Amino acid sequence: MLHPLLLAAGEGGHDAVPLLLAVLALVIAGAKVGAAVAARLGLPGVLGELLAGLLLGNLVLLGGPDLRVVMDSGALLLLAELGAVLLLFKVGLESSASEMMAVGGRATLVAAAGVVTPMALGFGVGELMRPDDPWMLHAFLGSMLAATSVGITARVLADAGAVQTPAARIVLGAAVIDDVMGLVVLAVVAGIINAAATGAALAAGTIVWIVVKAVLFLVGALLVGGLLAPRLFKSALILPAGGVSAALALALCLLSAYLAAVAGLAPIVGAFAAGLVLDEQHAADHVARGERTLEESLGSLSAFLVPVFFVRMGMLVDVSAFASASVLGFALLLTLAAVVGKQVCGLLAPRGVSGLVIGIGMMPRGEVGLIFAGMGAKLMLDGRPVVDAGTYAAAVFMVMATSIVTPPLLQWALRRSERRRLEAA
Amino acid sequence: MLHPLLLAAGEGGHDAVPLLLAVLALVIAGAKVGAAVAARLGLPGVLGELLAGLLLGNLVLLGGPDLRVVMDSGALLLLAELGAVLLLFKVGLESSASEMMAVGGRATLVAAAGVVTPMALGFGVGELMRPDDPWMLHAFLGSMLAATSVGITARVLADAGAVQTPAARIVLGAAVIDDVMGLVVLAVVAGIINAAATGAALAAGTIVWIVVKAVLFLVGALLVGGLLAPRLFKSALILPAGGVSAALALALCLLSAYLAAVAGLAPIVGAFAAGLVLDEQHAADHVARGERTLEESLGSLSAFLVPVFFVRMGMLVDVSAFASASVLGFALLLTLAAVVGKQVCGLLAPRGVSGLVIGIGMMPRGEVGLIFAGMGAKLMLDGRPVVDAGTYAAAVFMVMATSIVTPPLLQWALRRSERRRLEAA
Repeated sequence: MLHPLLLAAGEGGHDAVPLLLAVLALVIAGAKVGAAVAARLGLPGVLGELLAGLLLGNLVLLGGPDLRVVMDSGALLLLAELGAVLLLFKVGLESSASEMMAVGGRATLVAAAGVVTPMALGFGVGELMRPDDPWMLHAFLGSMLAATSVGITARVLADAGAVQTPAARIVLGAAVIDDVMGLVVLAVVAGIINAAATGAALAAGTIVWIVVKAVLFLVGALLVGGLLAPRLFKSALILPAGGVSAALALALCLLSAYLAAVAGLAPIVGAFAAGLVLDEQHAADHVARGERTLEESLGSLSAFLVPVFFVRMGMLVDVSAFASASVLGFALLLTLAAVVGKQVCGLLAPRGVSGLVIGIGMMPRGEVGLIFAGMGAKLMLDGRPVVDAGTYAAAVFMVMATSIVTPPLLQWALRRSERRRLEAA
Repeated sequence: MLHPLLLAAGEGGHDAVPLLLAVLALVIAGAKVGAAVAARLGLPGVLGELLAGLLLGNLVLLGGPDLRVVMDSGALLLLAELGAVLLLFKVGLESSASEMMAVGGRATLVAAAGVVTPMALGFGVGELMRPDDPWMLHAFLGSMLAATSVGITARVLADAGAVQTPAARIVLGAAVIDDVMGLVVLAVVAGIINAAATGAALAAGTIVWIVVKAVLFLVGALLVGGLLAPRLFKSALILPAGGVSAALALALCLLSAYLAAVAGLAPIVGAFAAGLVLDEQHAADHVARGERTLEESLGSLSAFLVPVFFVRMGMLVDVSAFASASVLGFALLLTLAAVVGKQVCGLLAPRGVSGLVIGIGMMPRGEVGLIFAGMGAKLMLDGRPVVDAGTYAAAVFMVMATSIVTPPLLQWALRRSERRRLEAA
């Protein structure tokens, strides 16, 4: 039982996995302390986890080790992604497909408004701050603000036990839909820039195919999954009891996450769809013969993995990038556009549903903005990257600010909406 | 919420993490089905998981996809390693440091016999099958058989609820000790070969330092950990209840695994040491204020991760490597040496303790043999690798065969020993 890892890592004593174990220990301890401190201050736990990550990722500024080198490892990324997948699966389990369908029209409206307005505002920020850049770059800047990252909102809603409120259902539905819309926007803008750079024409078929794949996945997952899930759980009863229902649920969740990625969507969208299709009721026969409920079985797994996702998100932020005043100004304006742009979503809230919860819930941009920025950094126009270092830093700031500001604001909005509801009753 | 993974994986739709999600889904489902089929046949679950992995890893021979490409990913390795770490941590939790100390002398004896005999037999196989090779290569071949991989034995013992029997304690202790011995043997043999290849002298100081580091870690972990653990759990009571004790235990386990790796030992040795030091009793105040016990909290986490380790081990085996008759003969002889060599351990069982359980429990070589083989493949003597392709395939076969044969044999030996005990009483 000697160095089971040297094989992969060569012959050094310090290979990558042991270091990852140490970082994981810090992440787990940091997440718990951060969440506890936040709770003591009346703030959501996820904010504490984000800030713990921010601290861990920037220890180097305080003379500590540079933990961010580990971030590039696919291993921590997989753990974090598993955390996000489990979180969205859990939120999906607490929702049901029919409830989501009931708010589908409104959610589509909210999603569309929440894509168009921030894009327009981001375009405006580009015109204002970088007047000499071609308009396509401003369009790209706007597209970075389009898609909501549902992870943080889902977490706050779950922690507050508010997943089944109408406002929550609209936000969660809209976030899934604006993923599809954001995908189309990115494909179109990147296509236009590529066409301008190479002189080639933009193929309309490409864009249509992107949309078709995404819609096919969502409809297919809900329909086929809805038909198959009860049968699969019933068939699985032939296996002797002992974690069978949990393993089946987890495997279906991961498979759906994979299929979503194949369809060009984010894995977490697939996990959410799997959660919508599945229901504790499917595992009832398994629970009757002594297994734990899905929530119990997956509970400690997600208690371990979900904080890894949020701490890692905090670790991604390089605080030293904001030393320049012009970058900071650009970053502040972009963040303002991101925040204000999504408030339009709140205006579309139906009667009796808190517009504040919807507007704030749509705010966080998570990794989405970073991914757009990362793509823009590789995309060249006239020999320059579409997203230069300053714009990249501003995008990181926007992601960080919307992520950090959303949890306390959303918690406040949820409490306010609950108080109003009680006063009205 | 769009493609949170493209950032790391470039711009393709099929990046590495989604594929890993799909493989994980297969691994989870395969492990459950494999374990169930094995249980139905009266065989240990871990054997079913190994065979499920063997099947998944060799689907390509049946015209399926080549899942082994994912094996090279550090991400699956980290998950598997976390599974092994959690398993050994759990086994350590069920043991106590004082119980282990009580069998320390006997375990050292068993470990020494279990290192020397297989080495001698392996050397003999080399002389017999490859008479023209220099003796150093035969020594290297022997050293590949030295160290027991405790994972499989620990799993069978845990599944059978036999961790606290005297035989189990001797096996677990001996496996930790033969890790240190195996390390020294590898350092010496590799040093001799390197010296012969370059004409340089072998530094005795290097060997001493390897031993000192390993011993320092083990003594340090047990002493310092024993003093600190109760204080840490007490201090952690200032955090609001909610998974605090589980997070602390997990962080300490991971930290200890990391420190073991820094000391040149396997991470799982560190996890085992952390488990020995910790005790459910440490978390009693946390449980009193409503938290789950450590076993409950870590249960579903290890239920997910431990099978990943065993399925991955099965996946590592490339069945097609055994098509050649001469490789197969060499492999069979090497396996025989590995199996017979460790039976000497059983002869050293104290009165009233099953020698069969000890001899069989020491048999599996897990990844250890593979790591030695991997190192040998990179080590050159007279322009040839110390471990050539045929020897490598034979080493893989030996690892596979000892891993697959041990679970059913050990289960049988445990039942036999229990029956004898009852008859004697």
